[in-house]
Amino acid sequence: MNLVVQKYGGSSVADTDKILNVAKRVSKKIRSGMKVVVVVSAMGKTTDNLIKEAKKINKKPNDRELDMLLTTGEQVSAALLSMALQKHKIKSKSLNAYQAGINTIGRFTEAKIQNFDNKKILSFLNEYSALVVTGFQGINKQGELTTLGRGGSDTSAVALAASLNAECEIYSDVDGIYTVDPKLYPKAKKLNYITYDEMLELSAHGAKVLHFRAVEIAKKFNLPVYCASSFNGKKGSYVVSEDKIIEKSVVTGLTALKNQTRVFIKNLPKDYSVVRKIFSKVALAGLNVDMISLIESEQNITLSFSVVDEKKTRLEKMLKSLLKNLAGWEVIYETGLVKISIVGIGMKSETGVAAKYFDALKDIPIKLVTTSEIKISCLIDEKYQETAVNSLAKKFKL
Amino acid sequence: MNLVVQKYGGSSVADTDKILNVAKRVSKKIRSGMKVVVVVSAMGKTTDNLIKEAKKINKKPNDRELDMLLTTGEQVSAALLSMALQKHKIKSKSLNAYQAGINTIGRFTEAKIQNFDNKKILSFLNEYSALVVTGFQGINKQGELTTLGRGGSDTSAVALAASLNAECEIYSDVDGIYTVDPKLYPKAKKLNYITYDEMLELSAHGAKVLHFRAVEIAKKFNLPVYCASSFNGKKGSYVVSEDKIIEKSVVTGLTALKNQTRVFIKNLPKDYSVVRKIFSKVALAGLNVDMISLIESEQNITLSFSVVDEKKTRLEKMLKSLLKNLAGWEVIYETGLVKISIVGIGMKSETGVAAKYFDALKDIPIKLVTTSEIKISCLIDEKYQETAVNSLAKKFKL
Repeated sequence: MNLVVQKYGGSSVADTDKILNVAKRVSKKIRSGMKVVVVVSAMGKTTDNLIKEAKKINKKPNDRELDMLLTTGEQVSAALLSMALQKHKIKSKSLNAYQAGINTIGRFTEAKIQNFDNKKILSFLNEYSALVVTGFQGINKQGELTTLGRGGSDTSAVALAASLNAECEIYSDVDGIYTVDPKLYPKAKKLNYITYDEMLELSAHGAKVLHFRAVEIAKKFNLPVYCASSFNGKKGSYVVSEDKIIEKSVVTGLTALKNQTRVFIKNLPKDYSVVRKIFSKVALAGLNVDMISLIESEQNITLSFSVVDEKKTRLEKMLKSLLKNLAGWEVIYETGLVKISIVGIGMKSETGVAAKYFDALKDIPIKLVTTSEIKISCLIDEKYQETAVNSLAKKFKL
Repeated sequence: MNLVVQKYGGSSVADTDKILNVAKRVSKKIRSGMKVVVVVSAMGKTTDNLIKEAKKINKKPNDRELDMLLTTGEQVSAALLSMALQKHKIKSKSLNAYQAGINTIGRFTEAKIQNFDNKKILSFLNEYSALVVTGFQGINKQGELTTLGRGGSDTSAVALAASLNAECEIYSDVDGIYTVDPKLYPKAKKLNYITYDEMLELSAHGAKVLHFRAVEIAKKFNLPVYCASSFNGKKGSYVVSEDKIIEKSVVTGLTALKNQTRVFIKNLPKDYSVVRKIFSKVALAGLNVDMISLIESEQNITLSFSVVDEKKTRLEKMLKSLLKNLAGWEVIYETGLVKISIVGIGMKSETGVAAKYFDALKDIPIKLVTTSEIKISCLIDEKYQETAVNSLAKKFKL
């Protein structure tokens, strides 16, 4: 069976006209001899609107009930898209998480897909040319509806394609993966190919084309993922393994992530149990810390890291209580920063990338730098963002 | 366990404020020592709006997909109401049709409840004080979501109460069962009690307080049903068995049902196979025929019956093709009529009701009359509706 899993995001199914457009695309694929499993998100702003309603009722809505509420969004778009396909004389059936056999584990609002009951879907595929599956959700062992968190529909689609050994295509309002977000840098180039590792770095650092967790799964199963727009016929981009890319760019992409806070802790005692305590408390509080940098001097330790602005208050409270019995330390917070990252698999084998990077940013005060094998990130003031993006994009021909 | 099933209709949960109001009522009941299973409809006009969206996509949406679409409405209100109850510190859980174990048989969009998996609900009731169950829906043997048709949430609630051996309360925007719809006759009186049979006649003839099928189930299980408003504390009405009512009114209620067509077939041959054929064809076409009246003369048969206006075209086509080989017959259609019915269990033992009825309508041309043991109905021109309602209501002290 020639099988493809296609995912259409919220903006691709935002209203009935757009759903009819998606149906046209899917039925064209079917007439070309494929069977299609479509994974859909909720229509447009549905999820956000449902959350708003929930918060009108209860400022801290229960996660289990929130999942019950939000999962309706995908069921609506799945049913409507199936009706639209039937209009094109396609044998189609919509499936919710119970019917598609999507099993999850983990907490409400951030569950993980454990497996698919492939037998269910495969037996439906004997009878139907298209199955429209609700993205973003699954059923846990207790029969509870659980959602997969932000970007969950990408994850559903990639996991389903891996499980069914099918091709995977992710459609959104963006027509591929660009070296830089075209909104930040209009001259950005579209990439034909990008590796999983590069895409992981880009997704983690602000690129929204494909969700981080979906890339992780694709990498694990070595599943090529095609990303393109549902609004035009332009060629998109493939996310693939490194061996599929013959000519590697040194730097493939650049991202800018706003609303970052730099946390700068001076005069910590040279006692690593304190540092360990800080990070374990931070992890327990569910605060994602990034860009950790630690410098040990003769007298003491200076620790820096970044968090997103909205977590600053929580972190501040935590650090105060944690360090209250310690003398001499001082914490400085700087909010509203932006993290600029360049990413490229070629960095591994190419020297001098860091030099070129700092050269491009020469007039800009840099607050914090971290690097990985295939990435360099720095924190700068938001007012320098445009200059930095332009300068780096030119330097690395993005 | 002191258990009550409460049903809240669409207007009672039309927005978040109304849902919060319902939560207040339910939590008051719980603090009085009860456990409550709440059955909810979709918020306000949700179901109608979803149908509109579906028709934008496909003028004749597939019934199975329509059910997938519509069942989301109740899941939204169930989740929101559960959140609202949790705000009142009530241990509450929403349950969709899978989780509540509501099993159905029959066609999509008009399925029937087969049974409840009581074990599921009872085990949840060990842990929770309130369960909020999606009305209007169930799961069939194939695991498909099916809806119960108009008034389905009433049916869900009554069936669930019967199955759990619980009390049953139906809340809507109407504060009980009136002798006449107060919109038609503002002086109408609220009934404290009404029998199942009377309520069946009233529901079948236009009263919207409690759906016909729900009354059928209540009667079957001899389950008293309390109907009241969710917007005030006014005392409502009980639907009960005949032996619970000591003083029976001769006439309990009056209904007026608009948009009726009278079909009048003259000069049919004295051959009952033709009449049988007409009604079997009518039934096959899913056309509900009412008020059948047949008069045999020496020469031929005259047949009259009523259908709702919107079915007239279909019926006309059918009759033409059915009778085309027959000579002499003639069909006359009169549309836009209104059916006025009076209903009362006391008619059984009281004579002279018909005489009083016709006396009240003395100046009004009557197109068709049918009677049952506890009901008299007639078809009249809509322009006479007000006169007829007033005159009958006065005559029978409604």
